[in-house]
Amino acid sequence: MIKLYNFDELRPEEILNRDIRAEKNVEDVVDGIIAEVRARGDEALKEYALKFDGAKIDDLQVTQAEIDEAFANMDPYFLETLREAAANIESFHRQQVHKNFVINEKPGIVLGQKYTPIEKAGVYVPGGTAAYPSTVLMDVIPAKVAGVSEIVMTTPAGKDGRVNPVILAAAATAGVTKIFKTGGAQAVAALAYGTQTIPAVDKIVGPGNIYVATAKRKVFGKVGIDMIAGPSEILVLADGGCNPAWVAADLLSQAEHDKLASPVLVTDSPALARAVQAELEVQIPQLPRAAIARASVDDNGKIIVCTDLHKAIEACNIIAPEHLEVCVENPFGVLNEIKNAGSIFLGRNVPEALGDYFAGPNHTLPTSGTARFSSPLGVDDFVKKSSFLYYTREALGEVAPRIADFAEREGLHAHAKSVTIRYEDNSNE
Amino acid sequence: MIKLYNFDELRPEEILNRDIRAEKNVEDVVDGIIAEVRARGDEALKEYALKFDGAKIDDLQVTQAEIDEAFANMDPYFLETLREAAANIESFHRQQVHKNFVINEKPGIVLGQKYTPIEKAGVYVPGGTAAYPSTVLMDVIPAKVAGVSEIVMTTPAGKDGRVNPVILAAAATAGVTKIFKTGGAQAVAALAYGTQTIPAVDKIVGPGNIYVATAKRKVFGKVGIDMIAGPSEILVLADGGCNPAWVAADLLSQAEHDKLASPVLVTDSPALARAVQAELEVQIPQLPRAAIARASVDDNGKIIVCTDLHKAIEACNIIAPEHLEVCVENPFGVLNEIKNAGSIFLGRNVPEALGDYFAGPNHTLPTSGTARFSSPLGVDDFVKKSSFLYYTREALGEVAPRIADFAEREGLHAHAKSVTIRYEDNSNE
Repeated sequence: MIKLYNFDELRPEEILNRDIRAEKNVEDVVDGIIAEVRARGDEALKEYALKFDGAKIDDLQVTQAEIDEAFANMDPYFLETLREAAANIESFHRQQVHKNFVINEKPGIVLGQKYTPIEKAGVYVPGGTAAYPSTVLMDVIPAKVAGVSEIVMTTPAGKDGRVNPVILAAAATAGVTKIFKTGGAQAVAALAYGTQTIPAVDKIVGPGNIYVATAKRKVFGKVGIDMIAGPSEILVLADGGCNPAWVAADLLSQAEHDKLASPVLVTDSPALARAVQAELEVQIPQLPRAAIARASVDDNGKIIVCTDLHKAIEACNIIAPEHLEVCVENPFGVLNEIKNAGSIFLGRNVPEALGDYFAGPNHTLPTSGTARFSSPLGVDDFVKKSSFLYYTREALGEVAPRIADFAEREGLHAHAKSVTIRYEDNSNE
Repeated sequence: MIKLYNFDELRPEEILNRDIRAEKNVEDVVDGIIAEVRARGDEALKEYALKFDGAKIDDLQVTQAEIDEAFANMDPYFLETLREAAANIESFHRQQVHKNFVINEKPGIVLGQKYTPIEKAGVYVPGGTAAYPSTVLMDVIPAKVAGVSEIVMTTPAGKDGRVNPVILAAAATAGVTKIFKTGGAQAVAALAYGTQTIPAVDKIVGPGNIYVATAKRKVFGKVGIDMIAGPSEILVLADGGCNPAWVAADLLSQAEHDKLASPVLVTDSPALARAVQAELEVQIPQLPRAAIARASVDDNGKIIVCTDLHKAIEACNIIAPEHLEVCVENPFGVLNEIKNAGSIFLGRNVPEALGDYFAGPNHTLPTSGTARFSSPLGVDDFVKKSSFLYYTREALGEVAPRIADFAEREGLHAHAKSVTIRYEDNSNE
């Protein structure tokens, strides 16, 4: 059964305690895989596909024929859903595109900042038991909107040597450039360093198991990475007017993901707290993934009762959840008080699943309390900024003595000289 | 003497090869320091100050009296420079502030994204031989502009137990909230975990030696960090019309920083290449920091000769330098071709030092080729985004079957149920 707490009796550390680190043996395995892929490229990828996925791969790259076949076999209703979701995601992310700026307020001085898309992005899509086409849409579309010219996707093939057709259809719908049949740490290594057939990319995004996450940590610096995702989390902030069955269903939509997933209810209503606690016991046994949900709720679930709504929001800000449902009477009235949350679902009719699949905002979100300082995946992750500055000789001349003085005070004579030399020698005005 | 290469004979790997990693013994030392600070807080910080800096510290926090004294003793001309620089930096960074957005194009649906400043930021300022007030301005002002309410600075005290007054004056000018006398890995640990007197922050920025950098890597996840800076780099892209003495002076302004600093000239003029090579030999012996500059130029310097200007820009984009000077006839004419660079200095009259101290753009920039995927420090580093979504019951109802179907296809029944349950039971419309 889920545990109940009173907010005022909890220390912040007790509310938080979420952290994941790879174990030493995972690190060693991943180091070995990266070294093999760097040394032997495609051959190593094919060996690992056979070893880990039981898949015999002749050509690593997915062909256009395989993609066409995937579309031909799609349920038309689902294809329509996929396209509607993609359109919603694209429309939301278009709003994230920033403009370059220029400042030209003083004579002879131009300052500015420009955005440039990352040239090549790699998207990792997990394989295994479940296929998540929603993740393909969420990771690829922001890159496309950002203007990334080459979007390379990797995903493991099944035992039949083929990629799940739904994943292929989602990838083509979202705008992937090339798809390769490789998974795990070896796929991350291939994207970071390149092989004979897989191009080295500038940034790698996408979720994965502990081997994938560890590989991303290892190649960070050589390439950019999106984030290291911890277990999924939902925090439902609910007042006494909520239907406990709906709240319980929302908590369970995260709990079914993973035994480590963390479903948390924060409420100012002790009655709702007890009702949701009871309702969870009713609903858990009805789920196909009951065992996972049970472990998540019992081990990582919490109900925190607060004296009032503002205290409850304070608890939310301390927890800084990945997903925050604000199931209260006037959700827009408290939006400004919410400081730390990846994605905010406003009102009683907005279950997290709406955002997971369809509404438009990204579902790749900061976990483990990192919403305190980091953000949902978006267009910003696929562009970089460069600042630029231009001074005329006259404009530089006016401030040259100040800059030379500043540099000398920092003990950097050559910095000073690089300014003053331009006024000692006039041969190149 | 600096080495000359022809671009067409270089492989990209030869152009790049920059990477830094902490050695194992550094990691162990840092692990030990972090553990001590977490266990013993302020006491550990005072012990390390005595051990590493030879400083006996009674109160870790710098007092207002110390700050007032620093201002009273400042050279008025330099104080004026500092204030002008701060005003320029603030004015540039104000342009980086993004607006929230909202999309309300369909009945009953509101989607949006809002920015929230990080609550507490930590700024690390190195001590040691040189004091860098410019770094204080560059790291603090973006946080201030972002709206961070608590900006905590740490810097080691000298043997006299005092912080360099210039650093204090810069910190107060920039808008720091509190200053603490602690440095090294222990300061990073204190900012990440908090001590009796130092508050735990949400994000840590600022440069430092290998111990500081390693500590930042270790605490990443618990808190955000800006970046792990490698050795400084300058790339001067120069055409045949440049004065070789100016180009050499600009290359040396980076070379004097660090033996590992990398000064690179890319040019389409073999004559300029040879002239700069010779001019470096003239200027190096004249520098106070000649030994450092000599090592940097000889071991990590390069002159790359290209067949034309566009090839030269291609080389710049492969190298993705921290600082790029574009010393050509029409610098704005090639700005669009420049894809990968932290900060771009346009024209023959814009030495990097102008940007290091004064002009306004940030001087904390991506090194080691990471300008391919990352950006200068700025306001974005001190805010985070949250997405939000609101659907009415009617709006959700219209798409509920699609979402439930999508969820079932991903094998996530509880996700589907969280939507459908809202239409099974109407007790809470």
